[in-house]
Amino acid sequence: MTKQNHNVANEQAAVEEQLIQTVVDSFDNCTDPRLKELMQSLTKHLHAFIRDVRLTEPEWNAAIEFLTAAGHITDDKRQEFILLSDVFGASMQTINVNNEVHDNATEATVFGPFFVDDAPRIENGGDISGGAPGQPCWVEGTVKDTEGNPLPGARIEVWEADEEGFYDVQHSDGRVYGRAHLYSDENGAYSFWGLTPTPYPIPHDGPVGRLLENAGRSPMRASHLHFMVSSAGHRTLVTHIFVTGDELLTQDSVFGVKQSLIKDFVQQPLGTPTPDGRVLDEGSWARAQFDIVLPPEGG
Amino acid sequence: MTKQNHNVANEQAAVEEQLIQTVVDSFDNCTDPRLKELMQSLTKHLHAFIRDVRLTEPEWNAAIEFLTAAGHITDDKRQEFILLSDVFGASMQTINVNNEVHDNATEATVFGPFFVDDAPRIENGGDISGGAPGQPCWVEGTVKDTEGNPLPGARIEVWEADEEGFYDVQHSDGRVYGRAHLYSDENGAYSFWGLTPTPYPIPHDGPVGRLLENAGRSPMRASHLHFMVSSAGHRTLVTHIFVTGDELLTQDSVFGVKQSLIKDFVQQPLGTPTPDGRVLDEGSWARAQFDIVLPPEGG
Repeated sequence: MTKQNHNVANEQAAVEEQLIQTVVDSFDNCTDPRLKELMQSLTKHLHAFIRDVRLTEPEWNAAIEFLTAAGHITDDKRQEFILLSDVFGASMQTINVNNEVHDNATEATVFGPFFVDDAPRIENGGDISGGAPGQPCWVEGTVKDTEGNPLPGARIEVWEADEEGFYDVQHSDGRVYGRAHLYSDENGAYSFWGLTPTPYPIPHDGPVGRLLENAGRSPMRASHLHFMVSSAGHRTLVTHIFVTGDELLTQDSVFGVKQSLIKDFVQQPLGTPTPDGRVLDEGSWARAQFDIVLPPEGG
Repeated sequence: MTKQNHNVANEQAAVEEQLIQTVVDSFDNCTDPRLKELMQSLTKHLHAFIRDVRLTEPEWNAAIEFLTAAGHITDDKRQEFILLSDVFGASMQTINVNNEVHDNATEATVFGPFFVDDAPRIENGGDISGGAPGQPCWVEGTVKDTEGNPLPGARIEVWEADEEGFYDVQHSDGRVYGRAHLYSDENGAYSFWGLTPTPYPIPHDGPVGRLLENAGRSPMRASHLHFMVSSAGHRTLVTHIFVTGDELLTQDSVFGVKQSLIKDFVQQPLGTPTPDGRVLDEGSWARAQFDIVLPPEGG
């Protein structure tokens, strides 16, 4: 713009704005009002980006090549576009707008790609680890509504990686570990043995990993344990809990951390009796508490 | 938001804005200042879109599936991400910001996917059609600088589809037609025989085609003839000329049309002598004039 006089700059802006209007108008015949709204808004924001950064043609080409590479690495097991959404915080922002702040309700975070529908059923006090390597961790808490009333029979899905950073589904042999579902008891209480969460990287051997590297960012996720909690008449909660003191809390690669979800995973001195009398081979264990509050449905 | 009181709405906005700031800050260590600028701006515009439309989780899923399908149909011959950029006017806007309005210089438009580097050389007055079906059309004009000085020896690449809407490269047998390069003469003048342009659709049997259909839009491109004109010391011009009266001018699927690029392709009464005395088998022909003005390099 520096070589242009003011009138030419105005004329240039008019050309750019006219194009936006033309594209927006091209969706006027869309009979689905929501699709029309999405397409017209996307047009405005996409063009605002191109104009703000004065996107160059080589940069446009690089974007096309990036998307192409992301498409080509994506298959049934690898979803590079979800990773892309994750590392720009777009997944987390979508969670935010669909799980609005509601009084004292527990906050939501990203779902992630590793949930499986038919995880084993356990009783309260049971073990989800399935023999996976890691430090045993007793997790307990309650499920209540926003008025403080216990919610008995709430379905609690929990899943997590082993201490090497892998979920069971990342192995190709069909093994099942680190996941289960259980139900809160008549007082809304629940408890289970899991593993103390440890950090791991998102898949970073593709275009998203290269982008993170070029941008000076880490692919690591803060240590976490996944929950999905549902109870009739209440909004289903998808969340994690994170570990107090984890140095990755401030640089989680997918921006899933919320202050209220950071919990103390308290290391127990050797020989401390376990809550259920279980005798642990290696002795070392930890415990954490997570009290869950569900807002009403539609809340 | 309707169920929330005002304070909760503020709290919700704070959560959403905090996330944007966290993602923006995550690029602070990027050592490439331009990449940092691009990533931080993209973050802001992407999140603004998600917040503006209150993107739902099923819509987010649909977007991931759309990008995945676009990635999977893309190969060496088919580039769905370029089509996607095209139908949102993003390609055209990128052209706009890189070819700013400059006095009386000829306007640029999209490059398209059908240019080939080693098109045949012809002399002025030669024929680019290579025997492809279509009405012969005499095209002539001048290449000048913005001061009106002729630019001799400017290299002019021209390419176009045949009357069935296909470029030569869309056939798999290596045939060459509808493309050539030539040079302006000592007076900056040029001329060639081509084909009167006819409309054709962009490839629309993939996700972009389905999007256009769902949005009530046509995949058709307005009839056009491509030019790329270069002359030492001047900005290279990539453009098309369009056909006065074409009913697709106002609904070009890639938004390439600019008023200044619409030219009269004048139908000649049967028996009208051709400019170079050529005898045409079928008699019918048209003529068009396109005077080209190149801005100085960097202008």
